[in-house]
Amino acid sequence: MPTLTIEPLTADAFRPFGEVIEANDSARHFSINDGFAERYHDLAHIDVASGGGRAIVSIFRALPRSLPMQLVLLERHPLGSQAFMPLSGLPYLVVVAEAGPVPDLAQIRCFRAAPGQGVNYAKGTWHHPLIALQAPSDFLVVDRGGKPGDANCDEHPLMGEAIWIKP
Amino acid sequence: MPTLTIEPLTADAFRPFGEVIEANDSARHFSINDGFAERYHDLAHIDVASGGGRAIVSIFRALPRSLPMQLVLLERHPLGSQAFMPLSGLPYLVVVAEAGPVPDLAQIRCFRAAPGQGVNYAKGTWHHPLIALQAPSDFLVVDRGGKPGDANCDEHPLMGEAIWIKP
Repeated sequence: MPTLTIEPLTADAFRPFGEVIEANDSARHFSINDGFAERYHDLAHIDVASGGGRAIVSIFRALPRSLPMQLVLLERHPLGSQAFMPLSGLPYLVVVAEAGPVPDLAQIRCFRAAPGQGVNYAKGTWHHPLIALQAPSDFLVVDRGGKPGDANCDEHPLMGEAIWIKP
Repeated sequence: MPTLTIEPLTADAFRPFGEVIEANDSARHFSINDGFAERYHDLAHIDVASGGGRAIVSIFRALPRSLPMQLVLLERHPLGSQAFMPLSGLPYLVVVAEAGPVPDLAQIRCFRAAPGQGVNYAKGTWHHPLIALQAPSDFLVVDRGGKPGDANCDEHPLMGEAIWIKP
């Protein structure tokens, strides 16, 4: 059965899928508040205006998964980006495939995010639902709010594919 | 010299200034991802469209202050809201006064935010620069990105007022 390799999450590796949200020297940053804070500026492309959308802020409280686990499905949001920032100081897994009419199952990637790393899925990026590890984990989410009935979630089932993540 | 009372941060107490961002039962919430996550939905009024603005995501890395401390200034962003979510599991202080041409210094409030509580300053709310406590603290910030030269920060100096926060 296919097993995904778990890769470290880096900005370069994640670029085809969106941005890594983290405070490091490669981001534009500058001092504010009389030197009491450093601002790491504009770290993600928040792309939510399609179809009259707006940015909204939510919290996801996720139950942890245990490995090995089988991938259930990939989903995509054709109308907007979706950013996740971990609030609980725990690592988590990010499973993605590039945007397109259907995901290329041979090109699914799995990244292990460190506690200080968020991700922003670009509009249309295929992704597995959030995979928390170790303990219940909160995430701040910045995604698109729209009108009732907006078609902003496509699903691609994977249970028949037997794709696994192993420890 | 005037000393601010440090109050616990609650949604009700903070309503004149914006929203508290937290996952609790009083927020609209619903199950997603086959029951693996609970979504606490649309917790803040992200109000950034004035003057052609857009939502951006940044990280502020703040140095801690020690108490007692004297308030330096209040600032406001007349073109947009500004949301802060703590990432470092530490409490922090929020100092605010209601929107208006100048802050009413007799009505300044100081709230102690718990680690799981973020705040969203409504457009125009007067606020002191971020007051981290205990250790360097990261915050995810959702505020307004605009054009160079947009006038989106007014300052009201306070050093002459001798307003203090004590432990």
